[in-house]
This record gives sequence, structure tokens and C-alpha cells, in this order.
Amino acid sequence: MYSFRISTEEKMATERIYNFSAGPSMLPLPVLEQAAADMVNYRGCGMSVMEMSHRSKVYIDIFEETKADLKRLMKIPDTHAILFMQGGAMLQFSAVPMNLIGKTGKADYAVTGNFSGVAMKEAKKYGEIHVACSSEDKNHTYIPAQQDIRLSADASYFYYCANNTIFGTEWKYIPETGHVPLVCDMSSNIMSVPVDVSKYGLMYAGVQKNMAPAGMAVVIIDKSLTGYEHPLTPVLMRYQTMIDSDSMLNTPPCYTIYMLGLVLKWLDKQGGVEGMARIKADKAKILYDVLDDSEMFIGCAEKDARSDMNVTFRTRTEELDAAFVREAVKAGFENLKGHRIVGGMRASVYNAMPVEGVYALAAFMRDFEVNNR
Amino acid sequence: MYSFRISTEEKMATERIYNFSAGPSMLPLPVLEQAAADMVNYRGCGMSVMEMSHRSKVYIDIFEETKADLKRLMKIPDTHAILFMQGGAMLQFSAVPMNLIGKTGKADYAVTGNFSGVAMKEAKKYGEIHVACSSEDKNHTYIPAQQDIRLSADASYFYYCANNTIFGTEWKYIPETGHVPLVCDMSSNIMSVPVDVSKYGLMYAGVQKNMAPAGMAVVIIDKSLTGYEHPLTPVLMRYQTMIDSDSMLNTPPCYTIYMLGLVLKWLDKQGGVEGMARIKADKAKILYDVLDDSEMFIGCAEKDARSDMNVTFRTRTEELDAAFVREAVKAGFENLKGHRIVGGMRASVYNAMPVEGVYALAAFMRDFEVNNR
Repeated sequence: MYSFRISTEEKMATERIYNFSAGPSMLPLPVLEQAAADMVNYRGCGMSVMEMSHRSKVYIDIFEETKADLKRLMKIPDTHAILFMQGGAMLQFSAVPMNLIGKTGKADYAVTGNFSGVAMKEAKKYGEIHVACSSEDKNHTYIPAQQDIRLSADASYFYYCANNTIFGTEWKYIPETGHVPLVCDMSSNIMSVPVDVSKYGLMYAGVQKNMAPAGMAVVIIDKSLTGYEHPLTPVLMRYQTMIDSDSMLNTPPCYTIYMLGLVLKWLDKQGGVEGMARIKADKAKILYDVLDDSEMFIGCAEKDARSDMNVTFRTRTEELDAAFVREAVKAGFENLKGHRIVGGMRASVYNAMPVEGVYALAAFMRDFEVNNR
Repeated sequence: MYSFRISTEEKMATERIYNFSAGPSMLPLPVLEQAAADMVNYRGCGMSVMEMSHRSKVYIDIFEETKADLKRLMKIPDTHAILFMQGGAMLQFSAVPMNLIGKTGKADYAVTGNFSGVAMKEAKKYGEIHVACSSEDKNHTYIPAQQDIRLSADASYFYYCANNTIFGTEWKYIPETGHVPLVCDMSSNIMSVPVDVSKYGLMYAGVQKNMAPAGMAVVIIDKSLTGYEHPLTPVLMRYQTMIDSDSMLNTPPCYTIYMLGLVLKWLDKQGGVEGMARIKADKAKILYDVLDDSEMFIGCAEKDARSDMNVTFRTRTEELDAAFVREAVKAGFENLKGHRIVGGMRASVYNAMPVEGVYALAAFMRDFEVNNR
């Protein structure tokens, strides 16, 4: 284990590795320990959370507390409903247009990376899509400025992806779209920074990066937006039906919701979303400082668009990239290989990545540069 | 804890209760213990299964082994693909017609309970539905005979639900539908009895009863059935796309698949599906014998249609039903209240319910009758 400094969690850290996966990704160690302790018999109720009827009091308490914690931590106003939906972010690529595009038949999309492009392609099945802005001209290394966004007057919504996991870019501002509702995929940066939820018509996040194990999306929707769904919308994807049934039209992914609840309790102890925002800015700076000081490593994203969640970088040769990834694994750093679309390396430093892991990686990078001049 | 006889698992049983929930429901204790032991650090790899990239070798090994075990235990032929899909059984209510009804625009449905009725209602969005048979005339207390099924000549598929969780009835035969592909919801009896998969065009099961924690459906599909999907089918619900991507178009519910894998290893040790079939027949007989010998308890389903998974019964008064459920809880039996549509009681005895739990419930029922004459 490559360790920059001894932490209080060192005992566990010597057994656990630092996992820089883009998702699914690290979960806080205390959360995993709690899950293990609760597994066979949750709080003396005689069963696992996995075994509980979703209609039972013991489970409803977990469900309601998780929702309440999310509402409090994200300061979600009463105008918005919280939905727990299956299918990850990708089913939302379809659910968003199926539910919302019917208002005018049109929507605006900002294409700033792979997943916003895939979402736009899917939306074209259901209506007329206008590309309001795109960073494709420079291989998605930047985020367009407000003045470069060309809005349609009659869009049902404006869609963007707040953080581009593959390219390592992040929107540093909330687009101004006038009366057109904002729809945002926040899968890879939700709860890493405070956002004014009231500015959004709908935001959603696949949970497997910052929130919980894979298998769910959290959807936060302005309840006034429904009423335009396509008649062929599958019942489980119809937002109004999910609002009316409080996400329990069928059995929800109960255990994933319980895990989200544990993560929220942990996040609360870190100072809530505000606390996470300070910590994540520190973590990102540690790695970007290495890139900026280096003569070997090159950041993939333009400086003013750099993501605090996914740090993408490379060396001058593919051979050296491969050597870096190989030696990193030996030193206890997993999943640093970049996405095949971008190449190079990617260090995903979501909320649950301990700062010690980032310090350790930074030290490893500096040493690697010295040893491979 | 009400215990009929001392079992080898008595130590745990004194802490854990017998949970007769219709779903989510009991999981095998050794499976939960393994999950707890693996939670923080799976087999020394330094991370939880929850934290693994779904593209990593360590996770792909889990995924492939789970698929291989399912294929072997259910004797799934090479003509059929195994898919892991999110959204539970209910999203399949939409996916089945969206993918399959396009062949002729029509489908036949057997309505023998609540969920087949809901599935039919959903299917009507996508095509012309013909009710091939229904048990609604007797409040779904029976299963129609083969000679009472009226097939359409030009149906794209014939749909039925093999076990009716709420009413406690179960199909004891596979409907003969000639050239029309059979589609079957096996959510509440999959892997409780061997089935000839080759006879089915498609079978699926929400996993939260007999297979794994809630949050996934296993879909087993004859690969020759695709090619007729509605153009508006959400990409994540398109069977051909899921076949092509081996259920990894997006991040699958990785941990749920791992849990399914543990359950399959356990099931294998019980003698596989053939072993489970013997055990479940024994368990059901223990409870049905109590009903048949009783002057107080009345089975809700007709004898030749009785489900081996969900034993529905009642007494002569609602007050006595309520007293039974209340006293059962005190004795360590949870979730015996029947569904509100049927009333009375329901004991769900899925694969993971130990035979000791069934013996204990039978003894409790007999004592309750003696004490409440």
C-alpha cells in the first residue's frame, strides 16, 4: 500500500485499496461496516433489510428517513418530489423526453460529453431535438459559455449533464434558460457541491458514483412539470404515477435505498453537502497541482472546465500511460485507466474517496515522474 | 420464539424471526452471513462488491459465474439468452408488449390474478389484447383448464403468470399454445420447480421472492423472438440491445447480481431446482394438511390450484383473523396478514423459508385453533 501519511483509518487502509473507479466507486468505510453489522439482523428486528416487506413499518421508517435526510441535505423545496427509480441514469434518458417533451414536441440539448450525446440520441425518438451548444469541436475538453448557448423559444426543456465523467469536465455555472425548465443529469457530481434545487425543473442521478451501490436513480422533479407524458410511456417510468405512489408502485430497490440512507448519515457527519464541497475542492486541487507542476503529466480538460470529480490526464506516450497504470495497481491504486474514448488516465475522486487516497496518489505520481524522466 | 423442534440453526433462529412476507422475503441465512463477511473486502481484493467497476475482471468473474450457475441449474438451452434487467417484474409488463407485440399487433393474456390483470392493462397501450381465459368469475380461486383457454390464431404471444402471489394459486401445467410463443411471469415460483425452458419464448421473474434482494428482473428469452420492437421502446428495455450488450448497456445492479450468485450456490447445495421442488412440496403439504384437518381455518384457493409458494387461508371471522396475525407476531412469525384484496392470512414459503419455520407455524396454527375454539 502506497501511503503518503498515516491516517486513523490506516489499519483498514492497509487491507482496503484506493479505488479510483468512475463508477461504481468507493463507498465510505463506516457505511460498509454498518451494512455488514446490520446484514443478518437489522437492529434486532430478526431479519435483514434485504428481507423486509417494502410495506412493513420497519422498512417504511428507513425509506422515510432516507427521503427526509436527502430533502434536508439538498435543501429540496416542497415544490419538488423525490423519486427513487430503477434503471440508472440511462432509463432517465428515455423517461425525460417521454414525460416532458409532449408540451411543445421540442427540447434543447447541450452536448458536452458522451452521456449527454447518448441522452440526446435517445430523446430524438420522442420529439424534435435542437443542439443548443456542443463541445464536440474540441473533443469535449471544455464547457460552452452562457453566451454560446443558442436557446429555442419553444423548447419543453433544456437538458445538460453537469459533470462529464469520461472527459473530466464540469459545468461551473447553472445555465440561464428563462422560462424553459432546466433538466440536469447530475450522476457524477450530485451532493459534491450545493445546488439551488429550485432553479431546476428536474435533476437526476444514477446513484453508483456519489450516493449508493448501482441499481437506482434519484429523480428530483418539480411537480408542476407533469401532464404531458406520451401515452406509450411505461407505467413505471411515468413521473406522475411515481409521485402518486411515492416510488412504491412496485417493490422499490429497497436495499439500495437503505444504503443511500447510510451514505447520507455519513455525509451529514462530513458537514453535509457544504462540507463535501470543501473537501472535494481540496482533493481536486491536490491532483491538479501535480498536473500543473509536472513536465510529464498533461491534463485532458481545459483548466476552467476541470471536473472536481474526474481528473483526466495523460503522459506524452501511450507506453508511459500503460506503465503508469500498471505500477499504480502494484502500489494499491485501482481503476486509473482512462476511458477508451479519451485514453490516458482518469482518477475519479467522488465523495467517498478519502483525502488520504488522493495524497497517496499525488505522491505516487510525483515519484513516478522522478523515476521515469 | 415458537419452535416446533430444535434445529441445527437454532442459535441463529432464536435471534432471527420467521418471515412469511410475500416479497421481499427471506434469504438463506448462509447467504446473508457470506454477504456480511464479504462486505468490506471481497476475497482480499481490497474493496466491496458494491464498489467494483462493472467492467473490472473481479466483477466480471462474479457476473459470468452467476450467469453460468443460473444456466446450469435451470438447464437453459443455448437458444435462450439470460438478461439482468432493472425495474422488477413491472417494467417487464411494458417491455414484453413493446418488444414482442409488433409481430401481429395482438396478444393473448390469461388473467388469473392481480398481476396478470395489471400486465394485461399495461399491454393494451401497445396492441390488441384478447383475454384467452380468466378466473375472475370466482375471484381468482382457481386456474382455468387447458380446454377452457380460447387461443387467437394470430397472437404474437400468449401471456400468463405461473403463480398468483395474492390469491395463492399456481398453474400446475404448462399451457399448450401451438406455434404461439409462451411468455410467463414466474416472479413468485421461479426455481421452486424444474421447468422445460425450451417450451417458453420468454420467462421473467422479479428477483425479490426466490432469487435475490429487490431491484432486478431475470429475463430468459428465446433469441429468435426479437425484431418486432416498437420504435419508441426505451433503449434499456429493448431486448435485442440487452442481448447484444450482455445486460451491460449501462451499469447493471451489480450487487443484486452478486447476491443472486450467492443464492444460486446455496440452492445448488440443496440439490438444485430438483431438490428445492422436493423441499417446497414438503413445506406446502405441512401447511395444507393443517388447513385440511382444521375446523377453524379455511383455504382460500381451490385444492387443485393451491400454490406451493403462497398459502392463503382465513378463519370464519375477521376478528379471529386479526387475533391470529397479532398472536403470530408475538410468537415470532412476521408478515402473515393476507393481501387487502383477499383478506385473511397468507404464509409465503419461498425457497429460503426453512422447513423448521413451516413446522413451527403449523404447530402454532394447531395450538391457536385449540385455544380459540
